[in-house]
Amino acid sequence: MGNPAKTLERQRSFKNAVLELRALTADDLEAVNGTILDHMQSSVKMIPEVAGHLINAGGKRLRPVLTIAAARSFGYDGRQHINLAAAVELIHGATLLHDDVVDESALRRGLETANIIWGNKESVLVGDFLFSRSFELMVKTGSLKVLDILSAASCTIAEGEVLQLATQKNTAATFEMYLDVVKAKTAALFAAATQAGAVIAGASETEEKAFYEYGLNFGIAYQLVDDALDYAGSQTDLGKSVGDDFREGKMTLPVVHAISAARNDEERAFWQRTIADVDQKDSDLPRALDLMQRDNIIPRTLDCAREFADAALASLRTLPRSNYTSALADLVDLSVARNS
Amino acid sequence: MGNPAKTLERQRSFKNAVLELRALTADDLEAVNGTILDHMQSSVKMIPEVAGHLINAGGKRLRPVLTIAAARSFGYDGRQHINLAAAVELIHGATLLHDDVVDESALRRGLETANIIWGNKESVLVGDFLFSRSFELMVKTGSLKVLDILSAASCTIAEGEVLQLATQKNTAATFEMYLDVVKAKTAALFAAATQAGAVIAGASETEEKAFYEYGLNFGIAYQLVDDALDYAGSQTDLGKSVGDDFREGKMTLPVVHAISAARNDEERAFWQRTIADVDQKDSDLPRALDLMQRDNIIPRTLDCAREFADAALASLRTLPRSNYTSALADLVDLSVARNS
Repeated sequence: MGNPAKTLERQRSFKNAVLELRALTADDLEAVNGTILDHMQSSVKMIPEVAGHLINAGGKRLRPVLTIAAARSFGYDGRQHINLAAAVELIHGATLLHDDVVDESALRRGLETANIIWGNKESVLVGDFLFSRSFELMVKTGSLKVLDILSAASCTIAEGEVLQLATQKNTAATFEMYLDVVKAKTAALFAAATQAGAVIAGASETEEKAFYEYGLNFGIAYQLVDDALDYAGSQTDLGKSVGDDFREGKMTLPVVHAISAARNDEERAFWQRTIADVDQKDSDLPRALDLMQRDNIIPRTLDCAREFADAALASLRTLPRSNYTSALADLVDLSVARNS
Repeated sequence: MGNPAKTLERQRSFKNAVLELRALTADDLEAVNGTILDHMQSSVKMIPEVAGHLINAGGKRLRPVLTIAAARSFGYDGRQHINLAAAVELIHGATLLHDDVVDESALRRGLETANIIWGNKESVLVGDFLFSRSFELMVKTGSLKVLDILSAASCTIAEGEVLQLATQKNTAATFEMYLDVVKAKTAALFAAATQAGAVIAGASETEEKAFYEYGLNFGIAYQLVDDALDYAGSQTDLGKSVGDDFREGKMTLPVVHAISAARNDEERAFWQRTIADVDQKDSDLPRALDLMQRDNIIPRTLDCAREFADAALASLRTLPRSNYTSALADLVDLSVARNS
């Protein structure tokens, strides 16, 4: 990640891949934004204020784009993928509001979080509201199967969040434990977004399954890159500080790798103190970064992400080819080379 | 409420009404409890611990009993009312977990709350889990109409909670504002519970509407009595302390009445200081109780509850008579005379 020219090129490429997919789905995405805006409204005026702060804060709309692309890749020309994509983004928004309360985060996408501006109580309740609204939207699709997929995914997300709470600060956490958290808290919604998009378009069971696998593996790859960037990105790119996960004592894959690569008791004690006890001083983050550089931790994490990205691409290749599947392939390919 | 013998008689009567309804629905209620238990399970072991603490803490299961009775009153002999009733109780459980975080409550039904034992983060996330599970159960009923009713009710509950947050400590809150909060945060789920029970049983639109009205008006009456008892009940009966609402600066109907009955600026300043500023000393609760007694506030609140109870009974009389509707009538009738 050291070559600035190469880094810039990678960044451009991922941004282009997202832009390509957004251009391909531009009309649908505009309709989704309108639907989201409609469903944030309430006579209780604090609700659209809090929800609007989050929803308008410049998210990539990655999950609804996945739903739209999956549905459109089968030539779907109905309108229910709009409600569905909006529902997926509202679930995501609800979990972000609750996440920021649970993580005590102060910054998201470069802006102060809702829990800081309005308070934890407001974030919990407006999250509940958005979550309920997302189910209202799913009901509008008229598909019980879609409701089944997304309610199961919502359960899995909550389980993943609780599991993360239980493994946080646990320096004995293994790669498998970490992967369980990532699958549940991030990849489950990616998988449900693409699978439900295929379902609403009337895809076959095999195609539906392939889109589920695509979403799940892409979601894992995406989160692994995110976790790597927390130790390697720059603040401007991420809209959050480098080392946020470190400061919170989060057991992410770079830390799992770094601990297993520790060469002596002193190094193991360093990770125990900084991650498990979250007892840190200013020189600790630079030292963590040094140790990670010495043991090649970030490239190893990105290699791991690459494996899941390859699995996502393999699933995609079993599906009917279209502009949409090409764009979805580019997205995966370039996401593992992104730096923001 | 001053005559101990009369109070005891009233208490027995309400308990009998609940027992009568529970006896009438005993087999169904056992099936509901089994379904709830199944749907609390998770490989993440903290989830059934936290959920079990709340769900097994001896709630009255009032809402699922309403759903069962509504469905059975039409002679329904299917099984989907079980999933539906369990879903209703899980929504209620999820809102209680989030409520206790928002209200910073320490005691519920005489036990320490989950947020005190496990923490706020855990309560938020396990609430999300139970909420998601409730939607999984609704999907199992196969009825999009039921899903529509309950997702709309969930939105309304969240709106009511946010509205309560906005009106809390606001001594200018009117009867109408207070009623809006009660309708949304309590009565909406009672109404959805009875309406959805009727829908699953294949009731006509008129019958469905009548059960909605029954639930809504009973829910309002029930909450008004609850709020009155917070200033008039005894700690043993309620499983919470008398004056909890007062100490939290909650604008409930007794306080709305008491403020409008204040005779001079000093009394208005008293309510402003104790409720709006929540700046209280030991002698404040006794004084609040004295002022309420002088101005007949508790009987006035209970009279108001009686009006909503009468509206609930009127709706019930338009429905086909059965053991279930008789028991539902007794329940309403005696709930406005309860002291716990």
